[in-house]
Amino acid sequence: MQYQAPVDDMMFLVKDVFKLTDRFAGIADFAEFDNDLYGAILEEAGKFATGVLQPINRSGDEEGCRLQDGVVTTPEGFKEAYQSYVEGGWQSITADPNYGGQGLPKALHVLIEEMFYSTNTSFCLYGSLTAGATQLLQAHGDEQMKEKYLPNLISGQWSGSMCLTEAHAGSDLGLLKTKATENDDGSYSLEGSKIFITGGEHDMAENIIHLVLARLPDAPEGPKGISCFIVPKFMVNDDGSIGERNAIRCGAIEHKMGIKASSTCVMNMDGAKGWLVGPPHQGLRCMFTMMNLERLSIGIQGIGLGEMSFQQATNYANERLQGRATDGEAPAPLKKHGDVQRMLNTMESFNKAGRALAVWLGSYLDIAFHSEDGDAVKKADIMSAWLTPIAKAYFTDAGYETCTIGQQVFGGHGYVREWGMEQHVRDCRIAQIYEGTNGIQALDLIGRKLIANKGEFLNVFLSEIKADLNRIDSSDHKHQVEELLTDLEELSQKIINESSNNPEIGQLVACDYLHYTALITYAYLWLKMESAANGTLDEKSSFFFKRVLARVLGLKASIESELS
Amino acid sequence: MQYQAPVDDMMFLVKDVFKLTDRFAGIADFAEFDNDLYGAILEEAGKFATGVLQPINRSGDEEGCRLQDGVVTTPEGFKEAYQSYVEGGWQSITADPNYGGQGLPKALHVLIEEMFYSTNTSFCLYGSLTAGATQLLQAHGDEQMKEKYLPNLISGQWSGSMCLTEAHAGSDLGLLKTKATENDDGSYSLEGSKIFITGGEHDMAENIIHLVLARLPDAPEGPKGISCFIVPKFMVNDDGSIGERNAIRCGAIEHKMGIKASSTCVMNMDGAKGWLVGPPHQGLRCMFTMMNLERLSIGIQGIGLGEMSFQQATNYANERLQGRATDGEAPAPLKKHGDVQRMLNTMESFNKAGRALAVWLGSYLDIAFHSEDGDAVKKADIMSAWLTPIAKAYFTDAGYETCTIGQQVFGGHGYVREWGMEQHVRDCRIAQIYEGTNGIQALDLIGRKLIANKGEFLNVFLSEIKADLNRIDSSDHKHQVEELLTDLEELSQKIINESSNNPEIGQLVACDYLHYTALITYAYLWLKMESAANGTLDEKSSFFFKRVLARVLGLKASIESELS
Repeated sequence: MQYQAPVDDMMFLVKDVFKLTDRFAGIADFAEFDNDLYGAILEEAGKFATGVLQPINRSGDEEGCRLQDGVVTTPEGFKEAYQSYVEGGWQSITADPNYGGQGLPKALHVLIEEMFYSTNTSFCLYGSLTAGATQLLQAHGDEQMKEKYLPNLISGQWSGSMCLTEAHAGSDLGLLKTKATENDDGSYSLEGSKIFITGGEHDMAENIIHLVLARLPDAPEGPKGISCFIVPKFMVNDDGSIGERNAIRCGAIEHKMGIKASSTCVMNMDGAKGWLVGPPHQGLRCMFTMMNLERLSIGIQGIGLGEMSFQQATNYANERLQGRATDGEAPAPLKKHGDVQRMLNTMESFNKAGRALAVWLGSYLDIAFHSEDGDAVKKADIMSAWLTPIAKAYFTDAGYETCTIGQQVFGGHGYVREWGMEQHVRDCRIAQIYEGTNGIQALDLIGRKLIANKGEFLNVFLSEIKADLNRIDSSDHKHQVEELLTDLEELSQKIINESSNNPEIGQLVACDYLHYTALITYAYLWLKMESAANGTLDEKSSFFFKRVLARVLGLKASIESELS
Repeated sequence: MQYQAPVDDMMFLVKDVFKLTDRFAGIADFAEFDNDLYGAILEEAGKFATGVLQPINRSGDEEGCRLQDGVVTTPEGFKEAYQSYVEGGWQSITADPNYGGQGLPKALHVLIEEMFYSTNTSFCLYGSLTAGATQLLQAHGDEQMKEKYLPNLISGQWSGSMCLTEAHAGSDLGLLKTKATENDDGSYSLEGSKIFITGGEHDMAENIIHLVLARLPDAPEGPKGISCFIVPKFMVNDDGSIGERNAIRCGAIEHKMGIKASSTCVMNMDGAKGWLVGPPHQGLRCMFTMMNLERLSIGIQGIGLGEMSFQQATNYANERLQGRATDGEAPAPLKKHGDVQRMLNTMESFNKAGRALAVWLGSYLDIAFHSEDGDAVKKADIMSAWLTPIAKAYFTDAGYETCTIGQQVFGGHGYVREWGMEQHVRDCRIAQIYEGTNGIQALDLIGRKLIANKGEFLNVFLSEIKADLNRIDSSDHKHQVEELLTDLEELSQKIINESSNNPEIGQLVACDYLHYTALITYAYLWLKMESAANGTLDEKSSFFFKRVLARVLGLKASIESELS
């Protein structure tokens, strides 16, 4: 089944729900963008997703990546698709125009990312890591580095990788052992081995720019002794041409549950030459720069795959005849059975609210980065910090549930590879794990973002929503959202209070708290969409409020059971 | 990591929780069995699981089944393992001693099944289907058929398959098209094609006995025009020797998400010779005979895989050092982190309650089949009918969640194939789909078992529990269970009432109702286990009551939202 780019639904968010052009009024960098442009870009992105990415998605899963003599070959068609991707400018959407980027808002880019993840998650990862490397260099590289690497990373002609994880250092990067020693010429020599490196080696770009975390000889132990280095696969000569091969090589690729067309590499450095990015021992801080954007991107993987699974399940439920409907039709299409409706509605509930949160969060990242209004930037920074772990973890937890439901709609046909429904489940599963496991996201939310600042971020979040609720007419749903916000405030305060006597409390309830907060956020967003849709979304919104939102009761009780 | 057969936990259920020997007092067929025997059999089953089945589980997944020229080759080692399985008598545990079976209780067999599913789900399926065919023939075959086929099916020397599904007839078997026309000699000639036939063809047994659903020429349309036929792969001569090859052949095998070592076949019949089992047009009724047993068995797949995933996750959480614990230890084993404890506790909550329900339900199946007390049989029939859809659907839904959590504990290592955690997820996923999707189970529970008999089955279920609660000392948990039983009764009555005006209601709330009922059943079983354990299970039981059972609040609210 061909993917149908949901451009109308997306433009509804851009134009009617979040009114991006109004929201960005006063931001000089976006002054020339309007809804026509946004719509046109989304149309083109939809064509690229359907015409270029989807056709090589299942074949990419079947074929996978291959490693021979240190060379990784991507599946058939990937190299050509990547070439079109670069030529189409899809890597440079949000990047800095000073280095060849298009400077468009993240709030738009999240929608493009969704379409690409829908149609070929494995493919997207190469570009996602390149974007991460770009952002890090942009923020922490010196001017010479930026000039040398950024234009080719931004165009996608070169790709990037983030070399963080080691066999004994995953969630806890403080344990990493890779060593960097300074050479006479100011460069560094790196020794060590990294695992789970997405896009660490492949055949699609002419160079790969690795950002590597390592320890200097005088480094303190733990997370405060980690530095960041740029380690290109091929040296780049001063004239910009490709030079000699560097001693960073792929020793193995992982055999994984899914995203098989994405190369996941063991990268060995044997005297690889690198250059320090940012100050010594500040590597983890450098990583934090790109974290919000990368985590949002990985979250969107969950929405994209959920949407693809939903479209296929809807199509199948329309066509597959099975059983007797309550109106007597037999055999009736699956969609006439109430339990199948529940499944499709649940999927849509998650996808639409997730997409809205992606745009909302994207808009705060844009304000934080582009606005010149100091107060607005400060608020946007807080909102981004608060919403990012929610988006990453809940998009992907809900995405996995959604893909699993979509597979269930297909019955036995969902379990065989032919229909592609099981690939979505396998491809989605990793998004709950990498870029900080969803457990780590939950700890980030409740530890750093709630308890550590004694509810300050939560208050900003609540104020933003409450201010917006003033613009929405009174309704049952509005009343429900208001009550939930009060519940969230009270429960959060109890957790903060409890944490001073019981340091375990955050760990014990972290995941439930993240899901609880996410569902309340989704309720606000469904209300906001319903209100902007003039009645056309009432039924779908009601389903969410009746059937999905009910989960907050269990989550709240579960959290309260751990409070004294 | 080697599987640790949980024989002590199992014998705790057999001896202390359900007191099987007391429960079966008065059943002549079980008079000679005692706890020593049960314990010895479980010990042996554990050895077989660890020594024979587990070593070929991951290799079986990697290798898969292969089809060439109509011959299916199972992965290396499967044929030898099957031979040991037959020689060990593992196929014949519950079968009729008159035909070579051991006549042991199902309540014991469920525990053996769990161990085997834990260590090699693909392997188990061959025997599970053979058991289904055996039960059907035992109940509906004529004496000649029984003598001809049962001894070799019961020993496992021959295997069985159930040929139901066709491309356009899955959940709705009434749509099937395979035709059977009578031959002069009283046999039938079958034409048609079946899909998703587990064990339809393989190289482990010398003959395969297919039970095939087909239509006679004069058959009424729909489900009331389906007859059941026995169609052997090789004809069986009157002296019991193997005769000529029958015209039922494997045309293709499916490429699936998991259970790759289980052959899932397209079976084509081109004038295949068969014999009618049971009366004409009563094929679906014949299938119902074996349905409870088969559904329970498939449910246990969820518990078995959940247990294996739990053991591995626990082991990993003990050994993997990562992050700082709240007591300051760094790096600390994962198990010291509260969020990891939540994950492990959730897994154990589901596994232990599921295992208890399997034994409880198994004991009712035993009473229904073996007791000579008419009232006891009647009650046991109702309890089996009520509990079976709950067991099948909830064991597997919770099993999938459990395997997913286990994978999450491993972080990135859970996503790569090497550690085996992702295989459990893939292998478990099918159990929510086949043997009646979990949606079908939920409709069975709320439609046939609740609404159609106006709550009669529910009342028997409630009375059984209430009678047992009288034997349990008062406690907070007991009080909670009592309240939940009242809630369940009231909510069920509302659904029954509503259904007379709103025939959609069952479909709309079916899945939530099944989960709601299952969790309340688990609460009763946790209470019962806690009470039998003299304090040693209090902490684990409390976790279930505090953190997992809280979900009933959301489920209840979701159901109520659809009631007028």
